[in-house]
Amino acid sequence: MKRLVGTNKEISRILYEEQLALSQQQTDVDDLVREILSQVKIRGDEALRAYSQEFDQLAIQDLEVGDSLIEAAFAELDTRVLAALERAQKNIESYHRQQLEQGFEDQPSPGVIRGQLIRPIERVGVYVPGGTAAYPSSVLMNVIPAKIAGVKEIIMITPPQEHFNPAILVAAKLAGVNKIYQVGGAQGIAALAYGTETIPKVDKITGPGNIFVARAKKLVYGLVGIDMIAGPSEIGILADETANPAYLAADLLSQAEHDQLARAILVTNSDQLANQVQEQLEIQLKTLPREAIARRSIEDNGRIIITDSLASMFELMNQIAPEHLEIAMDQAYSYLDLVENAGSVFLGHYTSEPIGDYYAGTNHVLPTTSTSRFSSALGVYDFIKRIQYTQYSQEALAVVADDIRCLAYAEGLAGHARAIEARSQK
Amino acid sequence: MKRLVGTNKEISRILYEEQLALSQQQTDVDDLVREILSQVKIRGDEALRAYSQEFDQLAIQDLEVGDSLIEAAFAELDTRVLAALERAQKNIESYHRQQLEQGFEDQPSPGVIRGQLIRPIERVGVYVPGGTAAYPSSVLMNVIPAKIAGVKEIIMITPPQEHFNPAILVAAKLAGVNKIYQVGGAQGIAALAYGTETIPKVDKITGPGNIFVARAKKLVYGLVGIDMIAGPSEIGILADETANPAYLAADLLSQAEHDQLARAILVTNSDQLANQVQEQLEIQLKTLPREAIARRSIEDNGRIIITDSLASMFELMNQIAPEHLEIAMDQAYSYLDLVENAGSVFLGHYTSEPIGDYYAGTNHVLPTTSTSRFSSALGVYDFIKRIQYTQYSQEALAVVADDIRCLAYAEGLAGHARAIEARSQK
Repeated sequence: MKRLVGTNKEISRILYEEQLALSQQQTDVDDLVREILSQVKIRGDEALRAYSQEFDQLAIQDLEVGDSLIEAAFAELDTRVLAALERAQKNIESYHRQQLEQGFEDQPSPGVIRGQLIRPIERVGVYVPGGTAAYPSSVLMNVIPAKIAGVKEIIMITPPQEHFNPAILVAAKLAGVNKIYQVGGAQGIAALAYGTETIPKVDKITGPGNIFVARAKKLVYGLVGIDMIAGPSEIGILADETANPAYLAADLLSQAEHDQLARAILVTNSDQLANQVQEQLEIQLKTLPREAIARRSIEDNGRIIITDSLASMFELMNQIAPEHLEIAMDQAYSYLDLVENAGSVFLGHYTSEPIGDYYAGTNHVLPTTSTSRFSSALGVYDFIKRIQYTQYSQEALAVVADDIRCLAYAEGLAGHARAIEARSQK
Repeated sequence: MKRLVGTNKEISRILYEEQLALSQQQTDVDDLVREILSQVKIRGDEALRAYSQEFDQLAIQDLEVGDSLIEAAFAELDTRVLAALERAQKNIESYHRQQLEQGFEDQPSPGVIRGQLIRPIERVGVYVPGGTAAYPSSVLMNVIPAKIAGVKEIIMITPPQEHFNPAILVAAKLAGVNKIYQVGGAQGIAALAYGTETIPKVDKITGPGNIFVARAKKLVYGLVGIDMIAGPSEIGILADETANPAYLAADLLSQAEHDQLARAILVTNSDQLANQVQEQLEIQLKTLPREAIARRSIEDNGRIIITDSLASMFELMNQIAPEHLEIAMDQAYSYLDLVENAGSVFLGHYTSEPIGDYYAGTNHVLPTTSTSRFSSALGVYDFIKRIQYTQYSQEALAVVADDIRCLAYAEGLAGHARAIEARSQK
């Protein structure tokens, strides 16, 4: 990993620019994506079948993935994986249930009622990638919060396959997906955004995907809601001399193995620890199955910064605003108050980040590329709407009518004032 | 207003297509907007001054609007407007304070701690249009929720003027804006997104603006957060034979006077009421100061739908998902349970929509163009982040290590498994 030297302000500026460069999305696929969106909008299912033939070399009869395939997946799946998925599901459910919100109502003055209703989004679409990036854990992370929010209908789409990864279908069933359709890419996003004869139009689309999926989501944003446009994954580690360099190296590599664009950043006040982590990285990389990807990530994008104080370490990390933040120090919990920006925080020497990827119950769909400065992990709050309401009695309106008229005329909106005046005359 | 006839499904489809057409944003300004963004990014303040000269024909010395101008605004503002603004502010504060969230923490099993922190966004930028669309009420609606969320620094920008509308500066001061800068258009959004020598980079940008502002916000979205890209304003009214046609016509016109693209929709089970509203519209239009705009809106985009039952009325309105929803019926409150999609609901014969625009305390920044299916009024929740945290003790990790390894290997991510294994060996 490359060492960076400078003031916190300089370093965070450099890291931010580097991060932006890493997350720069190609937009040169946009013309093709627009064409696909428009074809699906016009031709519906027919276009979906044609694109499956063209891109996936598969002739699809039934767009829906039927119950028999799902039953077969349960029969095929390793029972240990099934049991682990079920235990992970329980943890994800118990964590996210705490995010459920209540509405409120008050009566601030006589004859006035105000409040806020909480309503689930009606229909949600979840995109699940095919191939090697088909992660059952991501199915759980996307579907469970929607289910807890009370979403009535959850539609999952995934690229057509000769043989589906059974863990994906099983996770979908466990989490409560209502229908699964086999369609991928930009054409899948189009089907969810516009609806076709077979696939119903949804209100919001979540889930990760390749560049075609990401650009299609960005283009249909506004017509439907989307979760976020995720960039490459990142981990930031704050560690002092109490940290174990072998643990840290393993955690940095667990992030690096995702993608050569993934980024691992270590901030420490211990020069010795920094050196030991570098050594451990080299040792552990040699036997890692995904060594090539992880090495590129660590060498190109890994960064170590040595600072002189804990205060400075936290200041810098808050400026970096990492997706995952590990605090590898004794008494890590006591430092939680210092965290201002991060997607998900892992406290102490034993809370390795993969615990959160799979199991603890916190969500692993997280804001990347410093966007934790203004956004949050996927949660139940992403699947609800808050609806305001107000009621004024005739008498209550009479009390405030002059103020409202005064403000309306001050803004040059006489029609607004007249709506109040209409109710005052008699 | 034009009458629409058909099944609810047909009508909601037609309305949706019409709505989309109305909200179609020009994108032909994008090249210019990109050039402006890039110039401000490179040249900073110098570019801002050059654009002010070019677009506003004003030579700006101080980009900051200083205290002396704000003091002068207080001296100039009609004291009745000031008093009304202060009372509106109190209502907005007391409503939004109810949106403040608490974090949570649980200990689902021995040695495991999980939780969610709530943190305010650090720095927010609010855009306030100049000229006739400079609404002090919008300043309050954007700034107060941010303030209540605990945002440390709120920056307001507004186009340079020979003479500022005093109500804008006063509302900013009342609501707690920290700094005001005079810069408008895409160059203002660029300044907030990238920062300049004078204007600090913010984490999120809110507030309405013209097409240049809207496209610039869309283009910088991801780099910073944004509130929403608002389309033309809409009102949907559900009314039965108990409604007063003069009130309804006045409310429809209060929406229509905003913009010829604004849209007013009446859904009723009373043919007689529909006819009376049409008559009242004609009578009231004749004396409305903004008659030309309102008439275009009502004639081109106003719609009346007659249905045969209350159930059908609510079903259709939920499909329409209006920004503003009035329920002009006796016992309106008892129908609140039937509302699934709407930005803000106004209950009963006396709760005219302008009460919410100015005064009741609910927010008037609302989801337009059917986006209330998946999004909500601007609120305190838009100015906070939720940060997850987890802590596992060594013993707690040992209990779940096999499950996590099993899931990691099932996904082909050995590096993830190894981060767990590193902590099990000893």
